[in-house]
Order: sequence, then C-alpha cells, then structure tokens
Amino acid sequence: MTLEKSLQDELLGVANALADAAREVTLRHFRQPSLRAEDKSGDHFDPVTIADRDAEAAMREILSAQRPQDGILGEEHGVTEGTTGLTWVLDPIDGTRGFISGTPTWGVLIAVGDASGPVLGIIDQPYIGERFTGGFGKARVRGPQGETALQTRPPRALNEATVFTTFPEVGEPAERRAFESVAGRARLTRYGMDCYAYALLAAGQIDLVIEAGLNAYDIQAPIAVIEAAGGMVTDWEGGPAHAGGRALAAANPEIHTEAMSQLKASLRA
Amino acid sequence: MTLEKSLQDELLGVANALADAAREVTLRHFRQPSLRAEDKSGDHFDPVTIADRDAEAAMREILSAQRPQDGILGEEHGVTEGTTGLTWVLDPIDGTRGFISGTPTWGVLIAVGDASGPVLGIIDQPYIGERFTGGFGKARVRGPQGETALQTRPPRALNEATVFTTFPEVGEPAERRAFESVAGRARLTRYGMDCYAYALLAAGQIDLVIEAGLNAYDIQAPIAVIEAAGGMVTDWEGGPAHAGGRALAAANPEIHTEAMSQLKASLRA
Repeated sequence: MTLEKSLQDELLGVANALADAAREVTLRHFRQPSLRAEDKSGDHFDPVTIADRDAEAAMREILSAQRPQDGILGEEHGVTEGTTGLTWVLDPIDGTRGFISGTPTWGVLIAVGDASGPVLGIIDQPYIGERFTGGFGKARVRGPQGETALQTRPPRALNEATVFTTFPEVGEPAERRAFESVAGRARLTRYGMDCYAYALLAAGQIDLVIEAGLNAYDIQAPIAVIEAAGGMVTDWEGGPAHAGGRALAAANPEIHTEAMSQLKASLRA
Repeated sequence: MTLEKSLQDELLGVANALADAAREVTLRHFRQPSLRAEDKSGDHFDPVTIADRDAEAAMREILSAQRPQDGILGEEHGVTEGTTGLTWVLDPIDGTRGFISGTPTWGVLIAVGDASGPVLGIIDQPYIGERFTGGFGKARVRGPQGETALQTRPPRALNEATVFTTFPEVGEPAERRAFESVAGRARLTRYGMDCYAYALLAAGQIDLVIEAGLNAYDIQAPIAVIEAAGGMVTDWEGGPAHAGGRALAAANPEIHTEAMSQLKASLRA
C-alpha cells in the first residue's frame, strides 16, 4: 500500500496522539493499590483492568474525531467498520499480566494498515517513557537517552544468538517443543518481556522472538516497527503474520531461515 | 546491629554515591553495539562484560576513599578484608543476561552490613532511572513518577497471589519441582525480571519471589529493601538467606508460611 506523503504525516501524527492519550490513562492506574484485575477467561487467568478499557476508549475518541472513516480493531472494544480501506489495530495494554505486576515491559500497541498488513506501528512503554515507531521506511526510538534510529542486528549463527518469548509454555505442546528446538540451540533464551521483546529486536539487541497463539493486535505494531528497522516477521511457515497465530520475528533473513527450518523440522517430527 | 544516626546517614550517602557511579558506567555501555560479552563459565553461558567490571571498580574507588576500613565482597573483583565489622556487598550488574539483551530489568545491587546480614540496601535500575532503597527502618523508591514510600502487600491467599522467579529452570530439578508446586497454586507466575522482581515485591506489586542457587551479592540488597518495606526474606527452611543459596521473599508472614510449607512438602516428597 503506497500512501501520499501528506497522508503518511497525518497518520503518524494521529498515531502519536493515540499513544500520548493511552500513556496518560495507563500511568494513572499503573502500580496503584486501587487497581483491580478481572478475569476475561473461564479456564485460565486472562486479566483485564479499567486501564485497558479506558486507554482503548481514549484512543477511539481521538480516532472518531480525527479519522472517523477509518476502521478500528481493538482488543477490548472489538471491531468498528470503516470506509477508507485503513484500519487501526489497537492493544491498549499488551502484557496485562505484567501491568498488574508492576513490570516495565508491557506496552501500548498501535498499528494502521490495510488487509495486506500494517504500514505504521508504535510500541510505547509509558513508565519508562520510551516510544518505538516504525513505518514509511523509518524506524526510531525516543526514550530516556534521547532519540535514535532503530536498526536490527547483522547476521550471526543461532548458537551465538539471543531468543525471546513471553511464556516458557509457548502455545500448544507441539509448538512448545518447536520453540525449545530453536531455544536449545541458541546462546541465550529469555522470558517474560511481553511486547518489549519485539522492541529489543528492532533496537538491535536480540536476534529472534518466537511466539504462538497471538491475535492481530498483538503483532501488527511489532511487524511495522521491526520491518522498518530492517528485520522481518512471518508465521512459522514464512507466510504473513499480521492476522496473528504463530510469529517468528528475526533480525535478518539469515537467522530467520535457520530458526524457521528448526521450527518446521520439529513440527514435522 | 544498631548504628549511630550519624553513621547511618554516612552509609546512606556513600551507598547513593556508589549507585550514582555505577549508573554512569553501566549506561555508557548499555545497548551499545560495541558491547561484548565474555563467558565466565565453562559449561553454561554465564556472561560478564566490561560494564560489570568497570562499574564495580568505580564503586571500589569510592569506598577506598570514603570508607577505607570497611570490607568489600564484590561479584567481579572478590573479597577485600576490612576492620570495622562492616562489609559492602556489591553486584555491579545483577542480570547480565538481561543487560546484554537490552532489557530494563537488570540492576545495580549495593548492600552494607555485618555477619548477621545487611542493614542497608539499594536496588538501582539506571535506564529507567529508578532507585529502591531500604534500611534503618525506611524504604523509598525514587523514579520516573517521583519519590514514594515502599510498602509490601497485605496478606492474600496463594491462589490469589503473584509469584516471580528469574528462570523457569530454577535451580536443581528438585528445586524446580518445589518452585512449581508453589507457582502451580498461584494466580499468576512471571519470569525473567532479575533483581527487579524483588523491587516489585518491596513496592507492593507482587507477593512472592522464589529463587535458588544465589550468591550473597544477589540477595543482600533485596533483603534490606524488602525488610524495610515490611516483607521478609528467608531460605526455604525459614533460616537466614543473606549468605545466598535458596531464597523465599514474601510480602507478609502469612504468604511466607503458605509458600514455605509447599516448598518443604515438595522437597520431602
């Protein structure tokens, strides 16, 4: 999808306004003793808080004023149909488990794109005050140490690489074994970083993020940021990942190929 | 150990000077492409960097000028004997694996105390700019949202509690099973936070941190911060934890008792 420069600038301005609004709402609740988590799921603990709901509502209010014809897909308030071909994909708090535990690795995820995927994404960490933005050929981070360009790592072998995932219990048992077949060959495996792992990949700090069971709103902003920083994100077969499911995010095509061949071999075994 | 108020103030000033110095050194290297990790261990990846070594050296320089008669135990540069009965226990970067991956959950750990344990501790996270301090009956955090008192959580049942550990593969196999016997009964389990998990416990965000295979420099600063915030840290038998080994950090005596009885039952089984 190719957009006019003026529309690119407009979308970037709106995306930043959404992130600013979500930052304010989430920080009002973060680490407050009054914060309560409800369970969205019957069979496992899937928390949601007023901060998730109100942050998405604040973003939707801005969109209804500034981009009323665009579609919206949000984790907490569902689908709003649009007419422009553009859809905003919002996760007000990616990593609610981390949010309710006080960690600084949850984030606000904002993407905009069409049916073929996102063209612009933001990963915002409000507590640190750090915003990772990628799209239209540019990837930047603005945070405690100022603003710099994002660039993924050059190739290195898997046995020299660092792999992240959120849960040690990635996806279904077969998916977990496939993840472990990659992680077992890597130099370093780390857990528990939520969307912050994708930001670290875009920032050239790590080589791979492997996840399963994702929703579109979990992965679209990371795709935009990582691709603009020089990396790639696919499903475990090399196909598009923007609809969710299994994701393999890689710093470069070489390590992507090596990791994907392990994943496929394990799933076939 | 009871210390004069003037000595307490002096130690607090020195501890903050150490943390300031380590913050400057670690941030000079954090996320830099030039940073290289060496492996300290033969059989598994145990990284160390110039940031670890130089941050400890910077702290030792301050101590040799300001508290030359105190002892020092540091992760990177070993033991320096003292004559005052006070020893500084330093981990320049707790969570070097996280540090070399760019995460914001490693920390600088500084404690001072005697053979019976620490009397003052600091957990500092330089990138966020967040410092958790506990000792002499006071516990405070200073960070992005200003300065506030630290207070651990009031009691709640284990099945409503949040448990943290750094690695899913906690300690030896029997220790891992014991950890899982607690985690399996908790509402929420999270991984990968390094020393930041202890800070979250002191800040009233979580209920338990369970670890094994620790060194004295991993746990002394957390003990001082958590105890000053109203929590407790023991080994898995209820004895002192300041020499390292297994640690059970709890927000209150009630959840400590419940978790410890699970750990003991699992180890006996």
